[in-house]
Amino acid sequence: MGGGEKRDRGAFGFSNMGFGKYFMCFSVAVNAVLLSRLLYERGVRYDCSEMHSGGLFFEGEGKECKNEGVHLNTSPSKPPALTSDTHKSSVPSDTVINFDHGDPTLFIPFWRRTGESSTIVIKGWQSMSYFSDIKSVCWFLEPGLADSILQLHHLVGNAETEGRHIVVGTGSSQLFLAAVYALAPRDTKEPISVVGAAPFYSSYQAASDYLRSEVFRWAGDAYAFERERVGGEERPYIELVTSPNNPDGFTREAVVNGSMGKIIYDFAYYWPHYTPITSPADKDIMLFTVSKSTGHAGTRIGWALVKDLEVAKRMTMFIVLNTIGVSKDSQLRAANILRTVISSYERKGGIIMGRGAYENFFKHGHELMSKRWERLRQAVDIHKRFSLPEFPSAFCNFLGRPSSTQPAFAWTKCEGDEIEDCEAFLKSHNILTRGGRSFGWDPKYVRISLLDTDSNFDIFINRISNIN
Amino acid sequence: MGGGEKRDRGAFGFSNMGFGKYFMCFSVAVNAVLLSRLLYERGVRYDCSEMHSGGLFFEGEGKECKNEGVHLNTSPSKPPALTSDTHKSSVPSDTVINFDHGDPTLFIPFWRRTGESSTIVIKGWQSMSYFSDIKSVCWFLEPGLADSILQLHHLVGNAETEGRHIVVGTGSSQLFLAAVYALAPRDTKEPISVVGAAPFYSSYQAASDYLRSEVFRWAGDAYAFERERVGGEERPYIELVTSPNNPDGFTREAVVNGSMGKIIYDFAYYWPHYTPITSPADKDIMLFTVSKSTGHAGTRIGWALVKDLEVAKRMTMFIVLNTIGVSKDSQLRAANILRTVISSYERKGGIIMGRGAYENFFKHGHELMSKRWERLRQAVDIHKRFSLPEFPSAFCNFLGRPSSTQPAFAWTKCEGDEIEDCEAFLKSHNILTRGGRSFGWDPKYVRISLLDTDSNFDIFINRISNIN
Repeated sequence: MGGGEKRDRGAFGFSNMGFGKYFMCFSVAVNAVLLSRLLYERGVRYDCSEMHSGGLFFEGEGKECKNEGVHLNTSPSKPPALTSDTHKSSVPSDTVINFDHGDPTLFIPFWRRTGESSTIVIKGWQSMSYFSDIKSVCWFLEPGLADSILQLHHLVGNAETEGRHIVVGTGSSQLFLAAVYALAPRDTKEPISVVGAAPFYSSYQAASDYLRSEVFRWAGDAYAFERERVGGEERPYIELVTSPNNPDGFTREAVVNGSMGKIIYDFAYYWPHYTPITSPADKDIMLFTVSKSTGHAGTRIGWALVKDLEVAKRMTMFIVLNTIGVSKDSQLRAANILRTVISSYERKGGIIMGRGAYENFFKHGHELMSKRWERLRQAVDIHKRFSLPEFPSAFCNFLGRPSSTQPAFAWTKCEGDEIEDCEAFLKSHNILTRGGRSFGWDPKYVRISLLDTDSNFDIFINRISNIN
Repeated sequence: MGGGEKRDRGAFGFSNMGFGKYFMCFSVAVNAVLLSRLLYERGVRYDCSEMHSGGLFFEGEGKECKNEGVHLNTSPSKPPALTSDTHKSSVPSDTVINFDHGDPTLFIPFWRRTGESSTIVIKGWQSMSYFSDIKSVCWFLEPGLADSILQLHHLVGNAETEGRHIVVGTGSSQLFLAAVYALAPRDTKEPISVVGAAPFYSSYQAASDYLRSEVFRWAGDAYAFERERVGGEERPYIELVTSPNNPDGFTREAVVNGSMGKIIYDFAYYWPHYTPITSPADKDIMLFTVSKSTGHAGTRIGWALVKDLEVAKRMTMFIVLNTIGVSKDSQLRAANILRTVISSYERKGGIIMGRGAYENFFKHGHELMSKRWERLRQAVDIHKRFSLPEFPSAFCNFLGRPSSTQPAFAWTKCEGDEIEDCEAFLKSHNILTRGGRSFGWDPKYVRISLLDTDSNFDIFINRISNIN
C-alpha cells in the first residue's frame, strides 16, 4: 500500500463541492440531526419512519414504512438457492431491490460448498469466561483467532504483522471508535477533529457524533480541513483513511499534512477479491473485518493491528467499557472460517497455490467480483445513462498476475443534466442505493452494493439495462 | 418485584458517608481520572500498570504487574476438573486468588454435564448477513433467541413479557448505555444526570463517562441526588436500579421521587439461584444477561424488555451505531443454552417440575450458591473478623418453597477499628477483592465474588477461616 497511487479526487470531473464547510457545521447540529434523520451505518439503513428519500429498509412496528417486495436474505437457516448468473428474473418490475447496504450475501453459496470444514461446534461449557488470554494486551482475544489472523495476513501479504498487537472488536465499527478514543488527547477540553477525505464512508459521521463526545468530534472532509490548516494554525486531528475506499474503491493515502495528526487506516477492502495486493500495508493502526474479507457480517468480528502498546491498551480499555470484550463464540467461529481459507492454499517454492481438493475463497471471490463488474459495465454501456469509475490494473502479489480493481460497491454517476438526485432516480426504478450526500459528495452519485445474492444481482442488471 | 422490600440503607450501621458530593464532582474530573486510574467493569479489572491497591489482574506487556500465581479459568478448551467442595487445597499461601471480578466459572461443571444438549453447531454459511428479522424493531435479534427469552421468563416468572419489545445487546453493559442514550432528552445542551443508589455497580460511573458525552453524565449516588432535589428545583435524571443489587444483593426500588425521572432496571441477578422469585418484574425497561443467569459471560449476550416502542427503536439505533448489531453466533448459542435450561423443566398441574432425566440448572445453581454462602458464613463466624449482610427469606414462586437470598457477591465488612481499607487488608492475605470506594461506599467494605471455580473457592474459604 505504501506504493499505492494517490487518488485524484478530480477523477469524476468536479472538486470538493463545498461540502467541507457544510460538515464543519455538522457537529453543532448533530443531536437534532441524529434524532430525526436517517441513520447510516455500514450496510444498514435504519429508522424508516423518519427517513429521507430512498429510505425503505425496515418494517418495524412503526408502520410508516413497509418492506414488502424488498429482496433480502435474512434467514439464518435457509441459504439461498444457487442461482446461476445467467438466470433471467421474472420478478415484477415494481418489486423493490435493496442495494443500499453492503450485506455480503453473495459469498453464502461458496461457504455452503465448504461443508464440514467451515462448521464449528461449541459445547455448552466452552468459552464461558470473560477471559481468553490474560497474557495478551487484549485479554479477551481468543488465541486461536490471533493465530489465524497472523497466518491469513502472512498468506495474503496484505499487512505487516511483525511487532503489532492485535485488538479484536465487535466488527470494525467498534474498533474505529476504539482507535479514535485511543488516539484522542487526554488533556484538552476541545474535542479532537476527526476527518476523512470525501467521498468518505457514510457511517463515520454518525458513529463519531451520536454521543456528542467531548473527546472527539466529526469535522468532515479532510481536503477542506487541509485547506483550512494551510491558511491557519496547526490543530490536532485524526484522519480516517479507508483504502480501498468505501464508497469509490480507490486506493488512498492520507491527505492532511499537519504536524499534529494521527491516522487510522481502514483496510476492510484490502483483499485480493476487491483489489490487487501490491505490498503489505505497513501502518501504525490498521483495521480489518471478516464482514468484507470472508463475508461473515453477522459474526461481528473485526481486528486491529496496532504498533503502539499504549494505543492497543487504550483500545482494549474502550472495548471493555463499551461491551466488556467481544463474543467468544464469534471469535472461535471467525478463527475457523479463516483457517478454512488458509488451509485451501499451500506454498510451493515461494508461490502460493490452491490445494487440489479445495475451492479457494479468494480465487472464487475474485472471479465473482470480476464477473459482476463485467456485467455491470456492459449494462451501463447500453444507454450510457450512468458512468462508473475506471481503475488501473496492477500486479497482484497474491494472485501472481496482473489484476484489476473490482470494488464491493459501484460508485455510480447519473449522467445528464436532468438528474440531480441519482438515488431518487434509481428509487423511481425500484432500486434502492445510497446517495452521494451521505458520503459528503454530489447527489448525482450513488453507491450501489455489488455484494447481494446472485438472484438479486440478476434483477438489478436486468433492470439497469432497461433504463434509458 | 413490585412487593419487594425497600432496602434499609442503614443496615450496615452507617448512612451515606458523604459520598454523594464526592461523586457529584466526579464528572468534571472524569477524563483525567479515566486515563490514570483503575478501570472497573463488570467482573474485570484492567490496566494494571496504573492501578491502585489491590490491582493485580492482568499481565499485559506493560510489565509493571504480574499475574503469576493468580488462579483463573481462561482456557476455552479445558474445563476445570470437577473438584469436590470438600477438597482441601495444598496451594501455597502466597498464591494470589482473584475474587475481584464476577467471572461465573462455577457453572462450567454443570454445563459440561449437559453434553450434547447444550452443544451448538454453526455451519460456515449460516448467519452471514447483518440481518436476522427485518420485521422486528430490533432487526438483528435472532428469532430463536427471542422465543427462548420469552419462554424462559414464562417458566421462571421473573418478568412480565406481554407488550414488550426485546432488544438484544452485546452483554447488558451495551444495553445499559443504549437505554441511557434512548431515555436522554434530545433537546437540551446539558447532559442528563445518571444516578444509582450507593453502593452502586462499579461500572456505571466509568461506562457513563469515558466518552464525556454531552448527552448523559454520571451524577453519583441517587440518595444524594434526591436530597438535593428535595431542597432545590426539579431536574431530569435517569436512575439505575439494580435489583438484586450489585454489590450487596438486596432487592431494590427507585429512591429518587422526582417528576422528571426515568428508570432503568437491571435485573441481571433476579434469577432463582440468587434470590426468591416473588413476582414477575413489571417495569418499563428491564435488563437481563446470560452472563449471570446461565453463567455464559463469554458469549456477551444480554437483552432488554422494553415497553415503549420509541425507546426500543432508539436503543436499537444506539447498538447499530455502536457495533452494527450483535453477534449472530452468540445469539444462536445463547438461544440453545436457554432452550437447554427450559427443556429440563415441565409444568404439571400448574407446578413447575424438573424433567426426570435432566439435571435442572436453577436447582443446581441454587444448591451451589446455598452451599457457598453456608460455608462462607461458617468461615466468617470463626474469628468474627468480617461481617456479612443478613437477608430475609421469602417464598420463591419458581422453586415452590421459601428460599433465602444468596447473592453472586458477598458484600463483606472488615470489623474492627484498625482496618480502614478492607480491600488492602485482604490483599495482604493474597485475596483480591473490589473495595467499597468503587461502589461509592466505605472502604471498610469489599465485594467478594462467589462465582469462581470450586477449587478457588476452597482456597478462599480455607484462607479466610485462618484470618484472625
